[in-house]
This record gives sequence, structure tokens and C-alpha cells, in this order.
Amino acid sequence: MRPSRLDATHDPSLRSWIESANDAATDFPIQNLPFGVFRHDFEERPHIGIAIGDQVLDCLAAARAGCFESLGPVIGDALQSWSLNALFLLGREDARAVRAAASRLLRSDTPEGTLAKAMRETIIVGMDRISMILPAEIGDYTDFYASIFHATNVGRMFRPDAPLLPNYKYVPIGYHGRASSIIASGTTVRRPRGQTKPGEAPPAYGPTHHLDYELEIGAFVCGENALGDTVPVEHAEERIFGLCLLNDWSARDMQAWEYAPLGPFLAKSFATTVSPWVVTLDALEPFRAPAFARPDGDPPPLAYLMDEDDRARGGFAITLEVWLRSAAMRAENAPAVRLSHGSFESMYWTVAQLLTHHSSNGCNMRPGDLLGSGTVSGPEKASRGCLLELTMRGAEPLTLPSGERRAFLADGDEVIFKGWCERKGAVRIGFGECRGEIRAASTAAE
Amino acid sequence: MRPSRLDATHDPSLRSWIESANDAATDFPIQNLPFGVFRHDFEERPHIGIAIGDQVLDCLAAARAGCFESLGPVIGDALQSWSLNALFLLGREDARAVRAAASRLLRSDTPEGTLAKAMRETIIVGMDRISMILPAEIGDYTDFYASIFHATNVGRMFRPDAPLLPNYKYVPIGYHGRASSIIASGTTVRRPRGQTKPGEAPPAYGPTHHLDYELEIGAFVCGENALGDTVPVEHAEERIFGLCLLNDWSARDMQAWEYAPLGPFLAKSFATTVSPWVVTLDALEPFRAPAFARPDGDPPPLAYLMDEDDRARGGFAITLEVWLRSAAMRAENAPAVRLSHGSFESMYWTVAQLLTHHSSNGCNMRPGDLLGSGTVSGPEKASRGCLLELTMRGAEPLTLPSGERRAFLADGDEVIFKGWCERKGAVRIGFGECRGEIRAASTAAE
Repeated sequence: MRPSRLDATHDPSLRSWIESANDAATDFPIQNLPFGVFRHDFEERPHIGIAIGDQVLDCLAAARAGCFESLGPVIGDALQSWSLNALFLLGREDARAVRAAASRLLRSDTPEGTLAKAMRETIIVGMDRISMILPAEIGDYTDFYASIFHATNVGRMFRPDAPLLPNYKYVPIGYHGRASSIIASGTTVRRPRGQTKPGEAPPAYGPTHHLDYELEIGAFVCGENALGDTVPVEHAEERIFGLCLLNDWSARDMQAWEYAPLGPFLAKSFATTVSPWVVTLDALEPFRAPAFARPDGDPPPLAYLMDEDDRARGGFAITLEVWLRSAAMRAENAPAVRLSHGSFESMYWTVAQLLTHHSSNGCNMRPGDLLGSGTVSGPEKASRGCLLELTMRGAEPLTLPSGERRAFLADGDEVIFKGWCERKGAVRIGFGECRGEIRAASTAAE
Repeated sequence: MRPSRLDATHDPSLRSWIESANDAATDFPIQNLPFGVFRHDFEERPHIGIAIGDQVLDCLAAARAGCFESLGPVIGDALQSWSLNALFLLGREDARAVRAAASRLLRSDTPEGTLAKAMRETIIVGMDRISMILPAEIGDYTDFYASIFHATNVGRMFRPDAPLLPNYKYVPIGYHGRASSIIASGTTVRRPRGQTKPGEAPPAYGPTHHLDYELEIGAFVCGENALGDTVPVEHAEERIFGLCLLNDWSARDMQAWEYAPLGPFLAKSFATTVSPWVVTLDALEPFRAPAFARPDGDPPPLAYLMDEDDRARGGFAITLEVWLRSAAMRAENAPAVRLSHGSFESMYWTVAQLLTHHSSNGCNMRPGDLLGSGTVSGPEKASRGCLLELTMRGAEPLTLPSGERRAFLADGDEVIFKGWCERKGAVRIGFGECRGEIRAASTAAE
């Protein structure tokens, strides 16, 4: 078994001199310290930042001010670059060193903290004064299908006779996604147009009528393997920098018409939203959980995907929620309504298994590559991670507090994902939000 | 109808002061002038080059020497960059200006040519003295399925009851591919490992036994459209910089087991080879052809994919060949053997239609994105563009001149694609070669 990575940064008694970080409800206590990239309104140049309470440690400014000098010039340069890719290239070990240094800088009881507090005006910025952008240049984006509940629910709708295909319990099913259309949380999403074929009518091109979200976890890859080399499952977690929330927006009517035989394409590639803060696997260490317990009769993973340690603690206990707020609800000043809640523990494959499978053919995984988990759905109806499942392909529409009904998303709907971890004896940490509002399709001629 | 783009650069009477460019058999006469990126052995920095006979115009050196000064500093900077992405960003019009300037520089009867010839030692380098690398940083790679003959042949093997799915004649079917594993011609390809399920046996992980090539044309995207904007079909060709040869290596046994329901994944992502020279659509202008004539009864393309001009001249008459040379043939000094020959004219969808469809949901297409056509197969058996089709999934193995039999590729096999255009009244132009040799799977424990 791998050694526990619990260290001084996880100590529940740590307090920060940033007061908002000590609030029990914050997603970003000093035990979290996720990485992101932000911009000031007045400046084009992006800065790497670390979230702390409702503030951000400006790593560019802090590195320039010498706060990370003890980590050496290579890490210092990476912290001053325009995206997290350089830090991703350096890998987990160096990222651990940065996180540990940031912890000392932000603690209320360290000499580094005392010095940093004195530089507060230079190295700390309020979240309300910056815009978060994508944390990395994403070379390749891959989306998996790792919830057996989601696969079974969706399969039942499209293939009632064979909901779960014979390969599912052996192959971590995935497909290549589109990297160019990955957007930061808060970016509006235009309703896409595409080909659909409603019933017996001939195919037509127009705005989708079945626009959906998919609640997912994203994993950013760090380090690299040469083309032709594989990543053994026992080393795979060292190639995952951290996790975020991910909304794999989907146009179900387009998907149904286009997906055979080569899989989803334009039904997905119009937009994918990620939350801005990458929560490191190190921060998630206190929230490890056993991998999903395969029911009796399910085959064990093949040897290349099998790691006893991974079965014992390869899961992460992340609570996930989907919230929706329609334009009418906003107009009435009504709050968003929760549509579902589930846990990342329900996934059939661990994040390590996804990465190992991806590289098992020798595919080179590069720093900044993004893996989507696939829709996180659990066994209960309340934990279904997309409208397709929640409304049974629109047959059982939801009723919102405003009285509106939703089979799929309407223009003006805002979808908000939340995710967090809590456990007795540990300080709660969170992912922040992954948010997107639907705007109407363009008025281009059809 | 769009104006003909035939201009002085296509004049069949043009001769170059590079003698090898005047050889009737060269792929790279002065009427071609494709773009690529090369490296000297002694230098890390890549140079943009333009092929001419068996020589290359070193655009970095030529720009530094002032040869492109008349085109202005923006184009000059792009020609001195490390890849073609900057030129792709500028777009077709600027690329036309570069090609026209290169034509004048390399002609034997212009003042520019006289000056350039005097600088020959500085601005010209022999192909035998350089290594070609990937022409661009490829952001996203998409592979289509645009040959109805390929789709029908393959469909018949996997779905005898429904070889061609109902969406095929409406939707230019495609899927997102893997960008990281795209490699330059000449790079060896390691036989991948993966999950397969032979017959009734349980699934197992090991080297593929059904390794195949796929003969394709690649198209490099230039310019950009914002996320949410579409590219009308009548403007689509202005977003295609040029074409290359592309080998979409495929592991058929892995593909058969993994592809449902989300499409091909690890069966493809271990390697994709592209030829190094990007032949511009401008150079291909004399070889335009009508789009594929849909048989009576086939539906016309939907309006967003319909352009009269595209039907009239959206095809390109490119002859394509696949050659193979086994290790035994190399040992005997035997030449490669031709396995198939076909034409890009047989494609059901034009390159313009592929790009327009791809952006029809608002997907942003970035400079350097690569579109694969899908396997180019024609109606005759001799024009089938992969072994899966040629050998009927291995049931009818080929016999090589060496006496060896091939159902699929063996270690040591070298696969060579060739492509060229010829037509009465025009000078023949070619694509060069797309070449890759199979090396054995790694010896990592299974």
C-alpha cells in the first residue's frame, strides 16, 4: 500500500491569516489550496493563483516578491507562467512543494505567514476583483463513461434490449472530445444547431430541442509519457494533478441521430464547461474512499487495471450537486433549485484506471490533457446526473418552483454544479462552482 | 460560381532554376510549392520550408535575407516562426501571396529568380540534408468517414443486416481523434497493446493481432471562427489551407471490442501519420472535379451543406496508392508492392462540407486543426483503402511477392502512401510520401 500522504498541510487545526478561509462553510480553507488562473480587468497577462477563502494568492506576484524562492528557479518560473501547463509538466512532487509552501505562507502561526501578511496588498487579491480563465491549455480532452448507473440508464433508453453492453465491465469506455470548445465557468453557452430526425420526419438542421447538461468530474494530467509507453496503474495517480467540476453539455436529439457508428460528435463539441479551481489530489487525500464495490458476479478488472491499493483507496468521497435557475426564477429573485445530488464514490472505474487504460495502447498523455469522468449518476433517482436520466428522455418533466416545467434546458436557464468533501476529523474542502447559462441559438438562416 | 483561381503560378510553361523541379516525374514542380517544416541535424529550431524538386526553399533563411520583404512584416514574421500555425492563422489570402512570391523567387525567368539563384547557398537546402517534422501544432484532430464505399464495406462486416446506417447520406459522420499521437512520416509505429475479445474467450490485454492502415487525406484548417459561429459552406474552402496524406493506423480487434457505444478510441489513438508537405488548395486548383455524383434516389445534402459551386467543383482528382514492403522484402532488396489504388473523387462529402458540418453546431475551428477524410475507398476492390476491406477482415489474405501472406500488418512491414494529380494541360503535382514502419509491441508484462 502506498504511504499515506497526510501531512502538515492537512492538519485540521490550521488557521489562516485570511479570515474568510477560517469560515466552516468556505470551499477554500487553508487545507485545500487549489490552483487556478486569473486575469485582472486592466491587464491581458494571466496570473496563476491559489484560492484561499474569498481571496486569491497571486502566485505571479508572490514569486516575484520572493515568497517561493526556497523552491528554486524552475518552480519559480512555472509559477510565473501564463497557465498551469508548466507546473503540470513538473509533476505532482513539485506541486506538493508549492502547496506546502503556500500553506506556510497563508498560516497564521508561521514566520512565512507573518512576512506574507505584511505583503498582503501585493500578493493577495479578492475573488470579486478578478476573472477566472481556463486553468490550462488543454491539448487533448477525453470523456469517459465511468458510471455504470449512467451507462445503464442511458442504455435502457437507446437499447432497451441491451442496456449495458458486454464490454462495459471490462473496458473503461471513453471517447476523444473536442478541446477547442472547452470554456471557463461563467461563459454563456449558445444553444447549438444541428441535424436531428424527429420520428418519421426527414432530417432537418436547426436549434436543438433536447439540450442537456452532464455532471462530471474532470482530471488534469501532469507529467508526460513518450508515445509507445504505458502508465502502470500503480503509478497513474502521480500523473493526475487534480480534479475539477465539468459540464459536458449535450444535445440529445442531435446525439441520437449522429452517434452511430462512430460515437458522439457535434452533440457534444459545441461547449464543455470546467470549474476554474483545480483541487489537487493531495488536498483530497483525507477524502479517499474504497473504489466502487463491484457486485457479486462482476468480473475483476483485467490485470493491467488491477491494483490492490487502488481498490482499497482509489475512490474519492466527493459530494456533487446540480442546481438550476431559470430566467423566470431570476426575474422573481428566487434562488436556484437543486435538481440532483450524488457522490463520485459511485463510479465503476477509478481516476487512476481511466488514465492507465487511456495510455494502455501507448498513447502519450501530455501535461494539461483533461479527462472527463462521464456523467456521475448513482443508484438512486435523486442522484441522476443529467436531465436525460432525470426526466426519462423528457417523458417525465420536472416542475420548477416557478411552476415552469423542464424536460430539457430552456434558453436563460443557468446550470450550477457544486462539489465538496467533508468527513469527521477533517476540514471540509470544496470545488467552487461550475456555472453556465444558456443563450438562444443564433438567428443565422437555417 | 466562385471565380477560377488559376493564375500565373499554375502556368504549365513555368520552369525553375532548380533543375530537379523541371523533371516531369517530380511531385514538387514549381506549380506545386507545398509548405512544410524541417529541422537541420545541427539545430533544434524548426524552419518553414517550401518543397521544390528535390530541394527546399528555406523560408526562415529567405525571409531573413529579405526575399519576402514585399509581403510586409506580419507575413515575414509568420514565415520565420516554428510551425505553420502563424501562417494558418493569417489565412488563405496571405498564403496565396507567399506562394506567388515563392513562385517568382524560384522561376528561371524573373528578376527575383535571378537574385534568389545568387543566394542559393543561403536559402536552398537539399531534402537529403534535413528532417521533416509535423507541419503544425495540431490543436484538435477530427476524423471523418466520408467514403460511402468504405462505410458500406465495413458496415457489412460489423452489421450484415444494416451495412449503411440511415444517417449516412445526411450526416458527414465523424469523430474526435487524438492530437497528441499524430506523428510525422517516417516515424516508426509501435504495435499497440489493448483489450480484445476473440470469439467466446474472455477479454484479454495484449498486442493487437489485427493491425491495419487507413488511407486518408488530411486537411489543415486555417483562419478561425469564434465559438458559437458557423462556417457557411460557400466560405468553407477559404478555411482549408491545404491537404496532406494521412494514415489512420487502426487495431481492428481492439476496435471491434471497444467501439460500442461511444466509437473508436484506443484502436486509433496510438498513432496517426501525416505526410510532411501541405499541398495548398491553390496548387490543387487545376485538379478540381465535380463532387461525387450521388446515385439516383439518394437525398440531396441539407441546405446548410448545399452549395451549387461545391457540387460542380468541390472535389479534387487526387490519385492515391498504398504500397507495402515487408522486412523479408527489404532483406531481399525487393521493391515495395502496390496494394491498392484509388481516387479522392470517390468521396461522398467534399472537404468544404466536412468543415461546414463540423462548425454547424458553433464549434470553433482553429488554425492548425486537422480533419481526416476517412478511409478513401472506391467502388472497385482494387481501390479499397485498408486491409480490413482488402482481405475481408482477414478472411482473404493477400500474398506478397515474397510469398508471405498478409491478413493484417506484421512487424517490420513498411506502409507507404503516395498521392498525386495529373491532367492534360496541367503539370503533374504530388504529395510526396506518407510512410511508417511497424515495430514490435513493447515487452512490458501483460
